[in-house]
Amino acid sequence: MADLIDSETIAHVAELAGAAREASRRLALLSRADKDAALLAMADALDLASGEIIVANDLDIVRGRAAGLTEGLLDRLRLDRPRVEAVADALRDIAGLPDPVGEVVRGSTLANGLQIRQVRVPMGVVAMIYEARPNVTVDAAGLALKSGNAVVLRGGSAASSSNRALVEVLRSALQSQGLPAGAISLLDEGGRDAVRALMTARGLVDVLIPRGGADLIQTVVRESTVPVIETGVGNCHVYVDAAADLDKALAIAVNSKTHRVGVCNAAESLLVHRGIAAAFLPRVLAALGSAGVTVHGDAELELAAKEAGAEYSLATDDDFAREYLSLDISARVVESLDEALAHVRQYSTGHTEAIVTEDRGAARRWVAEVDAAAVMVNASTRFTDGGEFGFGAEIGISTQKLHARGPMGLAELTSTKWVVEGDGQIRQ
Amino acid sequence: MADLIDSETIAHVAELAGAAREASRRLALLSRADKDAALLAMADALDLASGEIIVANDLDIVRGRAAGLTEGLLDRLRLDRPRVEAVADALRDIAGLPDPVGEVVRGSTLANGLQIRQVRVPMGVVAMIYEARPNVTVDAAGLALKSGNAVVLRGGSAASSSNRALVEVLRSALQSQGLPAGAISLLDEGGRDAVRALMTARGLVDVLIPRGGADLIQTVVRESTVPVIETGVGNCHVYVDAAADLDKALAIAVNSKTHRVGVCNAAESLLVHRGIAAAFLPRVLAALGSAGVTVHGDAELELAAKEAGAEYSLATDDDFAREYLSLDISARVVESLDEALAHVRQYSTGHTEAIVTEDRGAARRWVAEVDAAAVMVNASTRFTDGGEFGFGAEIGISTQKLHARGPMGLAELTSTKWVVEGDGQIRQ
Repeated sequence: MADLIDSETIAHVAELAGAAREASRRLALLSRADKDAALLAMADALDLASGEIIVANDLDIVRGRAAGLTEGLLDRLRLDRPRVEAVADALRDIAGLPDPVGEVVRGSTLANGLQIRQVRVPMGVVAMIYEARPNVTVDAAGLALKSGNAVVLRGGSAASSSNRALVEVLRSALQSQGLPAGAISLLDEGGRDAVRALMTARGLVDVLIPRGGADLIQTVVRESTVPVIETGVGNCHVYVDAAADLDKALAIAVNSKTHRVGVCNAAESLLVHRGIAAAFLPRVLAALGSAGVTVHGDAELELAAKEAGAEYSLATDDDFAREYLSLDISARVVESLDEALAHVRQYSTGHTEAIVTEDRGAARRWVAEVDAAAVMVNASTRFTDGGEFGFGAEIGISTQKLHARGPMGLAELTSTKWVVEGDGQIRQ
Repeated sequence: MADLIDSETIAHVAELAGAAREASRRLALLSRADKDAALLAMADALDLASGEIIVANDLDIVRGRAAGLTEGLLDRLRLDRPRVEAVADALRDIAGLPDPVGEVVRGSTLANGLQIRQVRVPMGVVAMIYEARPNVTVDAAGLALKSGNAVVLRGGSAASSSNRALVEVLRSALQSQGLPAGAISLLDEGGRDAVRALMTARGLVDVLIPRGGADLIQTVVRESTVPVIETGVGNCHVYVDAAADLDKALAIAVNSKTHRVGVCNAAESLLVHRGIAAAFLPRVLAALGSAGVTVHGDAELELAAKEAGAEYSLATDDDFAREYLSLDISARVVESLDEALAHVRQYSTGHTEAIVTEDRGAARRWVAEVDAAAVMVNASTRFTDGGEFGFGAEIGISTQKLHARGPMGLAELTSTKWVVEGDGQIRQ
């Protein structure tokens, strides 16, 4: 595939990633104090440059409006003074977190006297491809630095002016601390070829984290030869069991769906056990309806939805497979816990799956049998989140099984090495 | 790429991997007692079927001899009664190891009362592609079962008759325990197409572990869309520092090179600091020479090698990059620790890198700055091994940074899931 990529773009990406690799060697040896000082300098620099950053952001907003972005997307793109302050404060929060590098994960002294220990070390160079808001640029740079990694950022083109301004400020702040600017770089040229060059930069990039829609993630998984951590596609289910407390079920279903709709841990599908359907459906459909949610249900739900005043459409297989990220939910009545488990097995994206039940046996089966990053009993799916879990920060939510699964904090941005110390031991 | 693969082969691999996935759901829920009973039944069945297995192996040996395999390769391929007993005993050893599944890695109770814990769970379906001896077939099957995974095995064609016989015995033993035969399957048809179908069986295969030469591993890394754990290419260095104890250095260099030559943790390159070169080179070259080692050195080493009676050839860049897996070693005199570090940075495959020194500062720099799965001070590179590290068993040695790095035991064949238990909590 490499031969199809523009050679100038390959050279540009290799130069950027090469500088990142060079910088990563410095970063790996920094003390926590040095990294925290750099993070605080970066935060102060953002505050100071707030005016310029907002001007740069205005360009993106004007361009976005001309391109017909929705008000919702424009709002996600917008940086104003409070938002710049918030991203700066996020860096200060990261400075306050413990340093994962150097942590001894396990170790022992072998019978022959060799002392072995497994120690956390940085990955090296982390690349991120994302489509989201410009605050991700700063968060990712801060988390990478704290975990001793250099980072190559590929943001969405809609935020390119903002991202350039932000990265420029961060790089200057690094240099003011005597650190290499190559520790944080933005790949904002070269279009798709640049992304493909990044995905195949083996030996320069240690891990690639795509953050965005299913299409982006599938492309990266298919084309990347660099190790990938898949993130964030969530077709999350709430299953209301026959033995559910219906008040809890109502609160959890509504919160999981409507607390914030554009996020990967929002519920996209509701399964209701036949045994409580008659009692529960009118309540939950009325509540969802009055929150403006459209219900995509099987034929059986049509009447109940109409009586409850909820918008209704007939669900297809595609609906059950879909991550709406909007005020829509698919819904089905199931005959049994087994049928609920089978439905989840068929449609789950392995993100977060919740059961509402007071039945200990049903809860135990759900927890044991559902194959997902997070399995929940009597709690909103919205809790699958690094901040909620107490990680202090989050680079994304992994839905793969290798390396990291679920919310990824600083530790998930590290690898380990074995340190073996002896006194001349040889193998017999 | 999928459209280039023979469709019958794709269907065959999908059927095999589908049966493995189905089986994996049963395996994930087994108690340790059930898994250990199955492992012991598998071991007993191998002992009982020893005669048939040896007959099947004879076919491979005859075929191998006709195909011109070296005596060394034929010996690796051969199964006799003691060797069948040894693989059966390896299964009994695995039964004796703790079960990694269900281990709580971390957990806490959040301020809102949610109880969260990160629990080890099986990967699901593990695929292995390997070229090595038929004992790997049994080891891999045993380790996968103990860690609750189904396994799809793709062995080398030279061992196909042996592998079929072994897997047949293992599957029967599983079924006699009421477990699904699909838990262990052998993919021994379809040639390269089958391997490619396996590498792209996303959703059916959770992780692919190639074990073999650099070519195999590079192919898998390049073509696989299934997550991969790279194993086992080791261009391992021994660096003898200016402050080395020369007796230790001699023992470590000779042991690292000659203890066993065909393995990934054997030393392939020797770096000697200028400051002790005059004292050390005659000794180490004589010892290597009398062990039958050919030294591939820079021009400077020629005279010393000849005086010491060691076979010598002029080293090229390729030599320094090469994993010989034979009685050959590349060698260089370096002017400083920095030069040694730079050399290792250029040529290391990230497996095992050892320094011999009594200088605390040099040892600390080596440990901190060398980027490898194992960094050693005053010890033979041969110690990077799951058995030596006390893991009890080993599925391979990872040289990548994601998920597992260094020797992989049972824990490395698991993922985790977050279990979140609440009492109706919703996000505010």
